[in-house]
Amino acid sequence: MNLIRDYRSDAATLATFEMRQAMANAEVGDDFSREDPTVNHLEEMSAKMFGKEAGLFVISCTMANQIAIMTSTHHGDEVLVGEESHIYNMETGGLAALAGVQTRSLRSSEGHFDFQDIQKSIRKRGLQVPMTKVLCLENTYDLNRGIPLSKEYISEVSLLAHKNDLLVYLDGARIFNAASALKVEPKILCKDIDIMQFSLCKGLSAPVGSVLLGTKDFIEKARRMRQRIGGGLAQAGHMAAAGVVALETMIDRIQDDNINAKNLAIGLANLNENIVNYEKTLTNIVQIDLKSVGKDAYYMSKDLEEHGIKIKVIDRETCRLVTHRGITAEDIEETINIIKNTIR
Amino acid sequence: MNLIRDYRSDAATLATFEMRQAMANAEVGDDFSREDPTVNHLEEMSAKMFGKEAGLFVISCTMANQIAIMTSTHHGDEVLVGEESHIYNMETGGLAALAGVQTRSLRSSEGHFDFQDIQKSIRKRGLQVPMTKVLCLENTYDLNRGIPLSKEYISEVSLLAHKNDLLVYLDGARIFNAASALKVEPKILCKDIDIMQFSLCKGLSAPVGSVLLGTKDFIEKARRMRQRIGGGLAQAGHMAAAGVVALETMIDRIQDDNINAKNLAIGLANLNENIVNYEKTLTNIVQIDLKSVGKDAYYMSKDLEEHGIKIKVIDRETCRLVTHRGITAEDIEETINIIKNTIR
Amino acid sequence: MNLIRDYRSDAATLATFEMRQAMANAEVGDDFSREDPTVNHLEEMSAKMFGKEAGLFVISCTMANQIAIMTSTHHGDEVLVGEESHIYNMETGGLAALAGVQTRSLRSSEGHFDFQDIQKSIRKRGLQVPMTKVLCLENTYDLNRGIPLSKEYISEVSLLAHKNDLLVYLDGARIFNAASALKVEPKILCKDIDIMQFSLCKGLSAPVGSVLLGTKDFIEKARRMRQRIGGGLAQAGHMAAAGVVALETMIDRIQDDNINAKNLAIGLANLNENIVNYEKTLTNIVQIDLKSVGKDAYYMSKDLEEHGIKIKVIDRETCRLVTHRGITAEDIEETINIIKNTIR
Amino acid sequence: MNLIRDYRSDAATLATFEMRQAMANAEVGDDFSREDPTVNHLEEMSAKMFGKEAGLFVISCTMANQIAIMTSTHHGDEVLVGEESHIYNMETGGLAALAGVQTRSLRSSEGHFDFQDIQKSIRKRGLQVPMTKVLCLENTYDLNRGIPLSKEYISEVSLLAHKNDLLVYLDGARIFNAASALKVEPKILCKDIDIMQFSLCKGLSAPVGSVLLGTKDFIEKARRMRQRIGGGLAQAGHMAAAGVVALETMIDRIQDDNINAKNLAIGLANLNENIVNYEKTLTNIVQIDLKSVGKDAYYMSKDLEEHGIKIKVIDRETCRLVTHRGITAEDIEETINIIKNTIR
Repeated sequence: MNLIRDYRSDAATLATFEMRQAMANAEVGDDFSREDPTVNHLEEMSAKMFGKEAGLFVISCTMANQIAIMTSTHHGDEVLVGEESHIYNMETGGLAALAGVQTRSLRSSEGHFDFQDIQKSIRKRGLQVPMTKVLCLENTYDLNRGIPLSKEYISEVSLLAHKNDLLVYLDGARIFNAASALKVEPKILCKDIDIMQFSLCKGLSAPVGSVLLGTKDFIEKARRMRQRIGGGLAQAGHMAAAGVVALETMIDRIQDDNINAKNLAIGLANLNENIVNYEKTLTNIVQIDLKSVGKDAYYMSKDLEEHGIKIKVIDRETCRLVTHRGITAEDIEETINIIKNTIR
Repeated sequence: MNLIRDYRSDAATLATFEMRQAMANAEVGDDFSREDPTVNHLEEMSAKMFGKEAGLFVISCTMANQIAIMTSTHHGDEVLVGEESHIYNMETGGLAALAGVQTRSLRSSEGHFDFQDIQKSIRKRGLQVPMTKVLCLENTYDLNRGIPLSKEYISEVSLLAHKNDLLVYLDGARIFNAASALKVEPKILCKDIDIMQFSLCKGLSAPVGSVLLGTKDFIEKARRMRQRIGGGLAQAGHMAAAGVVALETMIDRIQDDNINAKNLAIGLANLNENIVNYEKTLTNIVQIDLKSVGKDAYYMSKDLEEHGIKIKVIDRETCRLVTHRGITAEDIEETINIIKNTIR
Repeated sequence: MNLIRDYRSDAATLATFEMRQAMANAEVGDDFSREDPTVNHLEEMSAKMFGKEAGLFVISCTMANQIAIMTSTHHGDEVLVGEESHIYNMETGGLAALAGVQTRSLRSSEGHFDFQDIQKSIRKRGLQVPMTKVLCLENTYDLNRGIPLSKEYISEVSLLAHKNDLLVYLDGARIFNAASALKVEPKILCKDIDIMQFSLCKGLSAPVGSVLLGTKDFIEKARRMRQRIGGGLAQAGHMAAAGVVALETMIDRIQDDNINAKNLAIGLANLNENIVNYEKTLTNIVQIDLKSVGKDAYYMSKDLEEHGIKIKVIDRETCRLVTHRGITAEDIEETINIIKNTIR
Repeated sequence: MNLIRDYRSDAATLATFEMRQAMANAEVGDDFSREDPTVNHLEEMSAKMFGKEAGLFVISCTMANQIAIMTSTHHGDEVLVGEESHIYNMETGGLAALAGVQTRSLRSSEGHFDFQDIQKSIRKRGLQVPMTKVLCLENTYDLNRGIPLSKEYISEVSLLAHKNDLLVYLDGARIFNAASALKVEPKILCKDIDIMQFSLCKGLSAPVGSVLLGTKDFIEKARRMRQRIGGGLAQAGHMAAAGVVALETMIDRIQDDNINAKNLAIGLANLNENIVNYEKTLTNIVQIDLKSVGKDAYYMSKDLEEHGIKIKVIDRETCRLVTHRGITAEDIEETINIIKNTIR
């Protein structure tokens, strides 16, 4: 049992003992000259796992996202982003500030964009209009809901994008949660994606890192962008070593996070069916709607903190709980009981 | 009667004889040193007309819009823009490319943003979120519909923006069409606006130009931005001279454009009430919806061109006609007759 | 005789009566759709005059310079610029702010860059270094000296640039002063230049404007950049009309400005041979060095202003006088006399 | 004795056993919420060591440099940089691409800028000129020479900068080499510096990292910039832990690197006094000039590599050797012998 149960984010996962040892014992070299064997290994195994040509180790998902767009657009281009996406909402305006691209946001219903809406959002050519270059997907989508996008949806939406000469980029920070929920191989799930990144430090529990994937040519250019923003490192291997352990040991247990979240959702729905949609809780994020119980989310967050439970408040009426390696099945039970008393 | 009736845009208006003479006879000087008397006169009369401290003559509405945002934001900030606004759709991605700001688009219903939607779109402070700095309005709004925004709406929406420390910017390219339709003084209509621009070359018929308005301090900074993008000119007075004539002679006749548009809309609704919403045709833009008549807008455009009528196609089912000084009441009658034959 | 003799800049030239009439009578159209016959004519005659494929009318030299670099580079590239060039010193940091390129400045001796210095300044490829893309020339070079660059020098330096895959851009604001001084056709002088602009409003006396020249493909892309910064205009023809007159009537008289400047320099050297290098006064700019006469340039400027002479102070010890259409041979004589009394 | 002696860069230093253990055993937390105790500790001890208010851990010197300028300027401003500085030459054009600032390079003699040159480079205010905002120093200066800048020089040049309202930024990647060579406390040496960074991974031997230092307010803003470029990390403590060890255990031994470099220089000068300036070898970088021995640096590099010695070629006639923890006094002797045979 944990004394503190931190549901704020799966970024809260701490490195395992094995990862800590791997960091300590990493064989490292100069990654500028591509002589760091651990980094090379991580990039290769990542590329293979997702069926892409090449990979690039970066220290965060935000960095991966920003580099991806900087590399595949020019200033003044436009990219299509989900209204609830991380790249649009949680990256300090980087797309405009660094890549100089205009964001055109797409609404979604259960994580799915409307295809007519996409088609309408892709600009015709003209002197006065920006050129639409990239469709940005995120899987799982919506950092407050964790909606998994299916292989079929991705294929269909990618087809539409490709027909219109758009590149398809995937922010796959939580792609393993999606793959596990959908019971599909990551490589199959991401088959139609042109470029993507996945996180090593969310459910996979490494302390830092993300791997950007794409064609060899894309990764070559991305390497320059990484250098420009100061993301190139001499002995990155120490960090990459934890990432290798993450990929080797953590993928299978991602399903536990999904199961724990589902059980948490069911438990809460048993308390009050209006506060959570347990059927739509498909990965590791549980969103709680407090409207029907007339409870202020900020107060609830404070109450729970006194019982050792940390949650993330979204707004007065909404909060989220994210499951991860630091949360066990027993934690879930205990948490349901504590919340039961809180929302009474 | 005109041989060619160009309804594509009111930017098609040609300079009057008086404007041409004013260009030729303009008293000019060095505007870098603010020694051009005609430019100074235009800037002062514009500022006074809208009740703002100072003005800056620029050559186009797009330049005014871009300078306004460059001057009032920093890279990585966010601005709220209307989903159908010119600044978001028709300026070649300038907001991201030049000002480096992220655009957050607001949906609208009859030109009005939902206030809860605005409130939700204004970011809370946080390390990962851009800062929301400017609310961009446009009056008339929607370049395919020309919706006038009322004094009351502007006051209310500005109050909300100001409460949240946002600056209110108005793209008033067609503000005189709005003022005329609403029967309100421009100065009253724009009272709560912090910074704005209006066009000299749409309905007002000058060949080029827009005036940016705001506080003295804002205009001082905007002057640097104008210089940076090459918008500073030595003898700008020749162009400003036509602008002065425009303000002196053209404002009153703007109502004719609105009346002509209304009559055009009524005439078309008499042909088929489904193709045009004559009640919502409030300024000088008539939108035609061809769905109900099963006519392709591109074909219709070609048919009409053979009869000397130029229109702007928006998509297969929609087109627009804009009235302006080059279109008379007789033209409207003739045009209705020609369209009658076309959509039969 | 002029009451005020304005030697600050040849941008001070006022439009001729013929230009004013041309503005008034211009045949114009919609330049967005390339339907403005006067603009088209100006662009074509300019391209032909310099032996380039295509031209683009813009309202200022700064705008032409900025668009040229925005069009031919990407953010993070590097451009080589002269230490005394306009684009580096007088454009409000536009190259970095708009094009996002790093400026690498080259020292010059009598307007000539050292070839080894250029070679050394062109970056080898590497992850950590920007890519060098453009060599920026200016002819005449140095806005305080007006040094004409010869055909031979341009050919040689362009050859070096081309060997290293650099584009050669020429800021030819005062190219006609250079051509006249060197007694060579503009087309011959600029033969090895890839892209360039020349001013219509310096010695040529039009109120505004510059023409950007290059390949058809380059101009096509430049048109988008012009639109983005708000430089696209509906009826630009009024302004272009003055430009056409400038090209038709003003080129031959540019030599008078050069001669007047030379005579001014000789006259001043007769007063004191240390204050001016009359041999190096080759075009229309006379630089005065006041060190030897112990006179403060700011004081001298004030003294001269009382006698109706405006000059530009560079620093305490240096000022410049620029000749142009508004300065006659008689003005020169008078001016020498007045300065004679001032520096005594 | 090492099998491979890597003199290319002191970035080649590998983490010590103690650092590796510290990474493994680090106490970590969520650095977004400033809850990572190891990061907090590193930032505080760094700030204290240099007498600054606050610190920010970043993963590389390039990232620190870029964030520093992004935080203290606006697009279109100008910064003064040394002609041989890292920030100007080795950061993939980041200053222009990310911060949008124009670089104005200063020549130096023995690492010292000419004061008149600085004064002349600081722009007067004006519509057409960028505003000069930051003077960028680097200590040790010149990555191929490692020149230490004295406390007196820094004070004097900072005074000049401050008088002109410029901020003084120090790229102190190798500040400990300078401090050791000058026998002055880092805090004293950097007293007049406003903002600065120092490297944890050059001579100090941590695998990654730099600490940015300045006022609390500056660091607060810098944190946002770090987040924007993806440099914010959840559990950065693992990396910071190695940095703490570096500061605790490595500072004193920096002098060995300086001594080894001096001995290497003397040894080489004994072979041929023209190839190295041993008197000017003051820190840990030895520059070799091969002109007098008619040896191509690329060939020499290859020859040496066969004897297990890696060096960095600068150009055909010049190369550099950098000493660091991986190079012992014995290595130096051996290296001199091997080079002796090579350049014979």
